[in-house]
Amino acid sequence: MPFDHYSIIESTLREGEQFSTATFTTAQKLDIAGLLDDFGVEMIEMTSPCASPQSAADIQAVVNAGLKARILTHIRCKKEDAEQALATGVHGVDVVIGTSPRLMQHSHGKSIRQIIDTALEVLGYIREQAPNIILRFSTEDSFRSRESDLLRVYLAVADTGLVNRLGIADTVGVALPTRVYEIVRQLVRLTGLDVEFHGHNDSGCAIANACAALEAGATHIDTTILGIGERNGITPLGGLIARLYTINKAYVAKYNLPMLPVLDQLIADTCQIEIPFNNYITGSSAFMHKAGIHAKAVLADPETYESINPSDFGLTREIVIGHRLTGWNAVRSRAQQLGLTLTDEVLQALTRVIKERADTQPMTLAEIDALLHDAHLTPDPESVGAD
Amino acid sequence: MPFDHYSIIESTLREGEQFSTATFTTAQKLDIAGLLDDFGVEMIEMTSPCASPQSAADIQAVVNAGLKARILTHIRCKKEDAEQALATGVHGVDVVIGTSPRLMQHSHGKSIRQIIDTALEVLGYIREQAPNIILRFSTEDSFRSRESDLLRVYLAVADTGLVNRLGIADTVGVALPTRVYEIVRQLVRLTGLDVEFHGHNDSGCAIANACAALEAGATHIDTTILGIGERNGITPLGGLIARLYTINKAYVAKYNLPMLPVLDQLIADTCQIEIPFNNYITGSSAFMHKAGIHAKAVLADPETYESINPSDFGLTREIVIGHRLTGWNAVRSRAQQLGLTLTDEVLQALTRVIKERADTQPMTLAEIDALLHDAHLTPDPESVGAD
Repeated sequence: MPFDHYSIIESTLREGEQFSTATFTTAQKLDIAGLLDDFGVEMIEMTSPCASPQSAADIQAVVNAGLKARILTHIRCKKEDAEQALATGVHGVDVVIGTSPRLMQHSHGKSIRQIIDTALEVLGYIREQAPNIILRFSTEDSFRSRESDLLRVYLAVADTGLVNRLGIADTVGVALPTRVYEIVRQLVRLTGLDVEFHGHNDSGCAIANACAALEAGATHIDTTILGIGERNGITPLGGLIARLYTINKAYVAKYNLPMLPVLDQLIADTCQIEIPFNNYITGSSAFMHKAGIHAKAVLADPETYESINPSDFGLTREIVIGHRLTGWNAVRSRAQQLGLTLTDEVLQALTRVIKERADTQPMTLAEIDALLHDAHLTPDPESVGAD
Repeated sequence: MPFDHYSIIESTLREGEQFSTATFTTAQKLDIAGLLDDFGVEMIEMTSPCASPQSAADIQAVVNAGLKARILTHIRCKKEDAEQALATGVHGVDVVIGTSPRLMQHSHGKSIRQIIDTALEVLGYIREQAPNIILRFSTEDSFRSRESDLLRVYLAVADTGLVNRLGIADTVGVALPTRVYEIVRQLVRLTGLDVEFHGHNDSGCAIANACAALEAGATHIDTTILGIGERNGITPLGGLIARLYTINKAYVAKYNLPMLPVLDQLIADTCQIEIPFNNYITGSSAFMHKAGIHAKAVLADPETYESINPSDFGLTREIVIGHRLTGWNAVRSRAQQLGLTLTDEVLQALTRVIKERADTQPMTLAEIDALLHDAHLTPDPESVGAD
């Protein structure tokens, strides 16, 4: 099964650092890495040591923390970057080079032949220096690269036997799931190597694309907490979890799910952003039920309108009742919560009152509770809500 | 081409009203509908008139506003709901009934045979009363319904020739794009009718699924502004636009794109929520470029790291430079913006200074500007940033 064996490469400390308001201190990086390790991600990717002196020191600090997760760093396809990466004692090196016409022109100026030569030289150097290091080679902007160029590069690299993993990247967020499937499947078929997918979310397909990659045989998915990264970011950790959970809860059973809200809140606080109201699992509205029809059914069986059980993440559902779309089953449930016994007629009359009043302005729960208490004292359907 | 002929059914005034904090006044509904009409959506769906007296009056108010967009309302598959809908003078009626085992048990208690009988009765009644009304029939929770049940219901309804459109709904956000494609394609093939897709986003595939539906021949996609709706909502209007734009800008050329930021902000204000930092097109980070490699390339050609041109939406990109991941091309661009001529050596020395200082704490643009001005006065690479 495609979802039985996959690893998360958690890149909050690399791609995430490229988010506009993210600048992590050493202590924050250690915190984030520690919590990600507790959650259970298999790999943690960190900013290149070439970015700044502190970036190099931080890799060493996280490596020295002795986590279960393997620590990777992400470098340009250059020997000097590789040297600095190796000097940190990192467990794995992720090498990347752009292969799309635009990046070939504006990023490094190399032709495909030169890209292959450079890749083989840099990868050979790393493998020679560190025979046991986890070594990945990835193209950048893979989905705007010519497919023939991609294959020339990947096949040349795979043929050397130098790398453990090939990476494929939707750098500007344009790929569609069918295309991701096709390209990943082809790589798996042709090389037999592990394949990693990195997908940006500019056009809203980062989660669907990660899922398509796994279906095609990808073994590793890049995520960041809340999806933070360049522009509007990449596949969010929580979004990937939500996706795989709804296919089969067993696919995410290896992770410590109640830690997800802690991770999301930590990054929101650290980056001074709000968790989006519509965020997967941890958004304020993720488990809110409003329309009367929904409320009625959810009260009978939550799975009628829920594909994710909030309690698996240490969260609770909420049924909003003080509005014009409310229904009497939701009102009855609230009365039961308050320990009030009311007849169906009284509850239905109360519901009409709530719908009428809330038609102008939503009612608070306190106002509804007061109505219910009053009705409990004078349980006459005719006089319900009179005041 | 699948994306050449499609319509948006904008459901902010129906699905959107089911979002936890959404309660629109008549004036707000008229505003929202008017702006959606200016944007160019083809249809606007409104809350059932059975929800509350004001809901019924509001449909009439929006119908009377004389917009180009057709006004629809969304009702349960019940004759009494249909009567109330017809009384509003609405242009179209969207009829829905649950077909998944859970909804059959907890929502209406009907068997598939009873669902078919009820549907034919209600649809027949509507068509008899309003021969020219736009009539849609949809199942609910379609992707957790038995496929054979779905087909029995759809084929019976299609056979009557009563409806203009069939709807298919991923009510709890579980569908994968491949499955959406398969089911929509089948409906298109078997019935030849227009097909509408409505998809929730619990597992992050609402945009990819809408796109897959269009590829399969769907003619109508449901959206809401910012994606608001039950739980974490449905396909967002802006997200669908971003997706189709990145496939081919021509597919969204019929819409007034610079109005999108206005619509997103209006709903954020009305519902007292923040536009998510990572929102499509209008999120605060959507067009922010940070890493030095990205900044360099974007300065040379924005399309290197942008699949969407912000100016098409009346927005601008931003290159963040006061951080440890910065590069000297970005610093040079800032100097040019300030009208300062500095040599490459000076700019490279300045970049090293910025990387070092920002390694502890990000620098403001004012601090960087001061550095650049100082260097312009004493352009010696050795003394750059000395203070």
